[in-house]
Amino acid sequence: VALLARAYRRALRSAGRELLAYGDPRGRPELRRALATMVASLRGVPAGDENVLVTRGSQMALDLVGRALVRPGDVIAVEAFGYRPAWEALRLAGARLVPLAVDGSGLDVAALEALADREPVRAVYLTPHHQYPTTVTLAASRRLALLDVARRRRIAVIEDDYDHEFHYEGRPVLPLASADRAGVVVHVGTLSKVLAPGLRIGFVVAPAPLVERLAALRTLVDRQGDHVVERAVAELIEDDEVQRHARRAKRAYRARRDALGAALERELAGTLSFRLPPGGMAVWARVAPGVDADRWADAAAAAGVLVQTARRFTFDGRARPYFRLGYAALDERELEEAVRRLARALPRRRPGSTDPRRNFRSAGRAAKTLS
Amino acid sequence: VALLARAYRRALRSAGRELLAYGDPRGRPELRRALATMVASLRGVPAGDENVLVTRGSQMALDLVGRALVRPGDVIAVEAFGYRPAWEALRLAGARLVPLAVDGSGLDVAALEALADREPVRAVYLTPHHQYPTTVTLAASRRLALLDVARRRRIAVIEDDYDHEFHYEGRPVLPLASADRAGVVVHVGTLSKVLAPGLRIGFVVAPAPLVERLAALRTLVDRQGDHVVERAVAELIEDDEVQRHARRAKRAYRARRDALGAALERELAGTLSFRLPPGGMAVWARVAPGVDADRWADAAAAAGVLVQTARRFTFDGRARPYFRLGYAALDERELEEAVRRLARALPRRRPGSTDPRRNFRSAGRAAKTLS
Repeated sequence: VALLARAYRRALRSAGRELLAYGDPRGRPELRRALATMVASLRGVPAGDENVLVTRGSQMALDLVGRALVRPGDVIAVEAFGYRPAWEALRLAGARLVPLAVDGSGLDVAALEALADREPVRAVYLTPHHQYPTTVTLAASRRLALLDVARRRRIAVIEDDYDHEFHYEGRPVLPLASADRAGVVVHVGTLSKVLAPGLRIGFVVAPAPLVERLAALRTLVDRQGDHVVERAVAELIEDDEVQRHARRAKRAYRARRDALGAALERELAGTLSFRLPPGGMAVWARVAPGVDADRWADAAAAAGVLVQTARRFTFDGRARPYFRLGYAALDERELEEAVRRLARALPRRRPGSTDPRRNFRSAGRAAKTLS
Repeated sequence: VALLARAYRRALRSAGRELLAYGDPRGRPELRRALATMVASLRGVPAGDENVLVTRGSQMALDLVGRALVRPGDVIAVEAFGYRPAWEALRLAGARLVPLAVDGSGLDVAALEALADREPVRAVYLTPHHQYPTTVTLAASRRLALLDVARRRRIAVIEDDYDHEFHYEGRPVLPLASADRAGVVVHVGTLSKVLAPGLRIGFVVAPAPLVERLAALRTLVDRQGDHVVERAVAELIEDDEVQRHARRAKRAYRARRDALGAALERELAGTLSFRLPPGGMAVWARVAPGVDADRWADAAAAAGVLVQTARRFTFDGRARPYFRLGYAALDERELEEAVRRLARALPRRRPGSTDPRRNFRSAGRAAKTLS
């Protein structure tokens, strides 16, 4: 906050009149340059200034990309578990969304090809780095297959790389855009996670003609970004402050992930099963058969612990036996306390109800008896 | 700039963590309250917090209002001279725009009623305070007639009150929203003119259910505004700094208007005719017959003076013999120099070509001779 306040003041002092006037709808030139350099050096995405559009967070990026690409009724494939506001933005642009399965290797690319066999697909929207919400990293073979399908079928790949900075295991996984020879990837990034969501700074990296089209649309949606903040952030990137902050945050988040994982093992082994995620800000955990995840989450909320259940992320809006447990905003002590409360809030299983299939059968019998 | 820098720092210091987090898509509560109080006391618009949505400038307000009100093919009536980016935002939402004449009393309301006789009209978009670009204030009788037509025909009135602070003659003219008993007016305002366009702060004042709907849409378009800037500006309004600045700007702009008027009389009487506008930031001047306004503007541009010709504002995109001469951004000396250069750039009239109808007839004859 202090660094930002200082950078903001410096920006206003050095160029206040210019920054507060009408300006480039693509964003401040110094921030576009800084972002181009950043995605080139850290994400392996070959980009010049002309490939970068600064937006108000990734939400505006998706709204603009949707409006630029979609004609009413066009099909966009999405992950069957995902981020609802992104889907809604694409729907608002007129897209018909078709969900594709997600498994332990990420999006099912064969299902995308099968869909494209049946009908034209305009785009696929996905979160390959750490799939949202399941945290799975898209497997290398699937990445290549996806780019290949997209090139052959002329499908735009909307890559939402919302948490690039937060990968804890091994080498960073480069985005699809880094391997895009055919110019089919629209790469969407954000500084919401690495700096602050309230700054509303996101960006699109795409072929220059699309960037121009997005900029023309943006002029009609909010004219231009906040150029004082954009210049302040450009300075923070140039001075390596953003990267330094990201490294600090990454260390903290990794420790929090480990603390949450250990607490879950200690308190809830057998009830919650999960793989420690390779990155990101949440653990995706399977709730054991016989436990009603939504009832449990309600009881936890009453004890002061907010847990997201799968229902929030499923394309069909129906329940699935999973929790998404965010750890980034709590410290280790808070996480341990949260897990203790979560364990205490676990509803008693009814005797003999550990197998959901058995439950289902009993319910069936009961229903028959009643009818 | 200094006041803003200070207010920004204070906002970050007192509530940085909260302001940089996710927040209310309707805007910071303190700014919504300050704007509600401001429109109630200065514009006579009865509004509570629940009637106010803070947007990124009026452009986003129009984008959201268009998307909330319009189904594809719906008719929106607009002024035949107007602001093209506003039209484009409404078109992007799917509206079919129908132009209505503008005369010395503003929008032709009888033409709106006649249009509504022929087909359903979803909304009318207009600039009643100082019509953009002609600077005419909508006459009192037309205001009442417009509200009456809108109520009877169920037409939403989108009132773009972009320069409310800058009226120089007599008492302030209150917006349509101040007399709206039927809840048909969507009032759109902006701080771009009174503070700075680069701040991107606009607002909608409307019935609460519409505000909720706009907020839901806004969540998908850019999630939320810049809450640090919003809080800083709320403080500047509460401390009367915005109003003080507006009064200073108003004095300066009135003096500039008078200086421009005097210079035009001195240098270009007979070639440009105009009424000194009652407010706003530009003079709308008629170019004498026989002078090609667009050629003249090109010559002026080559001499360093940018003049907007009517072509930029006409619904059909065709030329009309008018200039819009902005005066707010230049001081008196600069305005006088600009008018001198404009006068020197005046193309020589061809002898005998003072009457455009005569030109037309000669052209006709010439064409006949050639054919």
